[in-house]
Amino acid sequence: MPRGFRAAGGICGIKASGKPDLALIVADHPCDAAGVFTTNRMPGAPVIVARRHLRSGRAMAIVCNSGASNVCTGRAGLEDARAMAAHVAGTLGRPMRIGDVLPGSTGVIGHRLPMAKILKGIDDLAPRLSRGVEADHAAATAILTTDTRSKSALRRMRLGGRTVHIGGIAKGSGMIAPNMATMLVFLTTDAACPAPLLRRALKHAVDQSFNRISVDHDTSTSDMVLLLASGDSGHKPLRASDADYARFSRALESICMDLAEQVVLDGEGITRLFEVRITGAASVADADRIGHSVTGSPLVKTAIHGADPNWGRLVMAIGKSGARVRPDRVNITIAGFAVCRRGEPVKHTAAQHRRLEAAMKADRIIIEIDLGLGKGQARWLGCDLSREYIAINADYTT
Amino acid sequence: MPRGFRAAGGICGIKASGKPDLALIVADHPCDAAGVFTTNRMPGAPVIVARRHLRSGRAMAIVCNSGASNVCTGRAGLEDARAMAAHVAGTLGRPMRIGDVLPGSTGVIGHRLPMAKILKGIDDLAPRLSRGVEADHAAATAILTTDTRSKSALRRMRLGGRTVHIGGIAKGSGMIAPNMATMLVFLTTDAACPAPLLRRALKHAVDQSFNRISVDHDTSTSDMVLLLASGDSGHKPLRASDADYARFSRALESICMDLAEQVVLDGEGITRLFEVRITGAASVADADRIGHSVTGSPLVKTAIHGADPNWGRLVMAIGKSGARVRPDRVNITIAGFAVCRRGEPVKHTAAQHRRLEAAMKADRIIIEIDLGLGKGQARWLGCDLSREYIAINADYTT
Repeated sequence: MPRGFRAAGGICGIKASGKPDLALIVADHPCDAAGVFTTNRMPGAPVIVARRHLRSGRAMAIVCNSGASNVCTGRAGLEDARAMAAHVAGTLGRPMRIGDVLPGSTGVIGHRLPMAKILKGIDDLAPRLSRGVEADHAAATAILTTDTRSKSALRRMRLGGRTVHIGGIAKGSGMIAPNMATMLVFLTTDAACPAPLLRRALKHAVDQSFNRISVDHDTSTSDMVLLLASGDSGHKPLRASDADYARFSRALESICMDLAEQVVLDGEGITRLFEVRITGAASVADADRIGHSVTGSPLVKTAIHGADPNWGRLVMAIGKSGARVRPDRVNITIAGFAVCRRGEPVKHTAAQHRRLEAAMKADRIIIEIDLGLGKGQARWLGCDLSREYIAINADYTT
Repeated sequence: MPRGFRAAGGICGIKASGKPDLALIVADHPCDAAGVFTTNRMPGAPVIVARRHLRSGRAMAIVCNSGASNVCTGRAGLEDARAMAAHVAGTLGRPMRIGDVLPGSTGVIGHRLPMAKILKGIDDLAPRLSRGVEADHAAATAILTTDTRSKSALRRMRLGGRTVHIGGIAKGSGMIAPNMATMLVFLTTDAACPAPLLRRALKHAVDQSFNRISVDHDTSTSDMVLLLASGDSGHKPLRASDADYARFSRALESICMDLAEQVVLDGEGITRLFEVRITGAASVADADRIGHSVTGSPLVKTAIHGADPNWGRLVMAIGKSGARVRPDRVNITIAGFAVCRRGEPVKHTAAQHRRLEAAMKADRIIIEIDLGLGKGQARWLGCDLSREYIAINADYTT
């Protein structure tokens, strides 16, 4: 973790599997803070509470359990989320207040949290808070559900003559769709940055990263991206007009892209990642419409799975996206092979076709779509749709 | 076919499998006609040509091949679609004109039609046009692609003292998403009904049926619903204010619903159909948003596949739909079992839970979602997502 933060993760007994299920991130003093939350209209209790607590632009701790999401739990669920925050504040003491603690939960919908286990878990974790890499890893592991691996990233930069860090951990492998934060992402930095500027930089970074990935186009009820800035690197607080603020924003965007890619790479049942580079759209919004449509299409995803250069499905997904399209200007390239030029097939020799099919068996496929209309562009990440996705989701109660 | 129509279907040699791939439906004289077409912005050449031909409100024939969709084929493709129409008009002679023939194609995207085969196929089919049930069945079979069975329906009613029929054949099992006509549906009737009234009745029937089903939320580039009315039942032409027009419209809606359900039941890889009944929405548009979101969610579809009463995923799909929702008013029932009341879980005994799980193993599951806000309602049909869907679509070039 960047300077000014400690972390811990462990087992409080929510998961029947006995895997880690409670994480704590605590700042040494009040931080500037910002968050981006799910757009789902049936948000979980922790989303409601954390969003409210963040209105002050100040926070000191994040407490998050996995195994139960505290969604559809009514007033009692809201009280549980508040009780998690209150217990952290009470245990860690001044200057932390309830409103400085941001609760998060992920897991099955529609069950009350086992509060006795969680409160005891907080008691157990508090003395183990630490600045070491092992503690970061323990926290990153304790927020996972169907994920197969923990996800973390770090960025380092110079701001105002000081070395500044941004660290992040993430959770997410199903119910991943673009439309705001769609997973749990907890970011900390020792940069000094006022809350309004943090908010602006975070919103931009999320739009470029987590809002441009898709595993299954489902949008969770629980998801949030939180960012706490301790200022402990000791530089002068950033201002909107600073070149340093631009540098900080770029680093934030970079770490979010890194974590977003880790989430897709751990997509449920993934065997192959694909990147869609859209250029020449009439607007960025149109480029995003196409990225959304292509990465979400079951027919595109199964073609990628089958290493099938079936670009007709790309045409279908482009056409259904709602973006402005002139069919006779559309160029499409798969894995470096032009397949559609000005809306018509590019003829391949049998040998070229075999090379294209072979290229599509790579772990990562790049699809380029140029609309020939304007300057709108976007880069999206998606994953294939496999039998394993079905197995995971037909047999697992989320 | 209703009075005034003949049909034929056969093999012209487009499909490598040697299965039937060319269908012809021909009226004895010019008919009032209407159509609804795909909203995909990269429509196939036949969609462009048929839409243009229908502007007159008059048509006499439908010619449709399967095995190649004539999409992304540029100007040459448009000429091919026109040549199909011209050849039918030329072969069958006066009073048929090119503009009276509506071409359709379904199959792989991005290949020119084998025109020599199609023109010879039309020559072969013309003398075999017939009024019998076998001819209807041959036509219904010749428009299939990944479908596992042919789809047809008939409705009979009394209008102005005469017996009137509406007949229809349909094709569709993948790339099925709501948003206008998303498959091939050819309807004929011996009712006498002016084209503007036909259009209105067809638009309404399609909105209630084909626009409320989903197999994979992909929207084909080729799809169309066509309706030709011969007037040969001999009653007075319908007028907008007639009770008979309302009766005709209801019968049209009923046959479209029947065909829509047949399409879902033949959904790629389906093992289980589910019906979503939304009530209490703030508007019909909101009810449709929820139907669209629930039937399209991969997580809902896999839960249905696993016979898993995982209503948290329904909550997620309701919340992400964009419809107005008050979580504390949402009631959800699965297969007759209340699972969520006022946004909170309904407690089940172990025995009740077992009965619910058993009920979810039925071929058809009914999900009821009441939002408790207003009078908006809608009924949607969807199918589960199975390993078989992946197998079909990872290995087949559409």
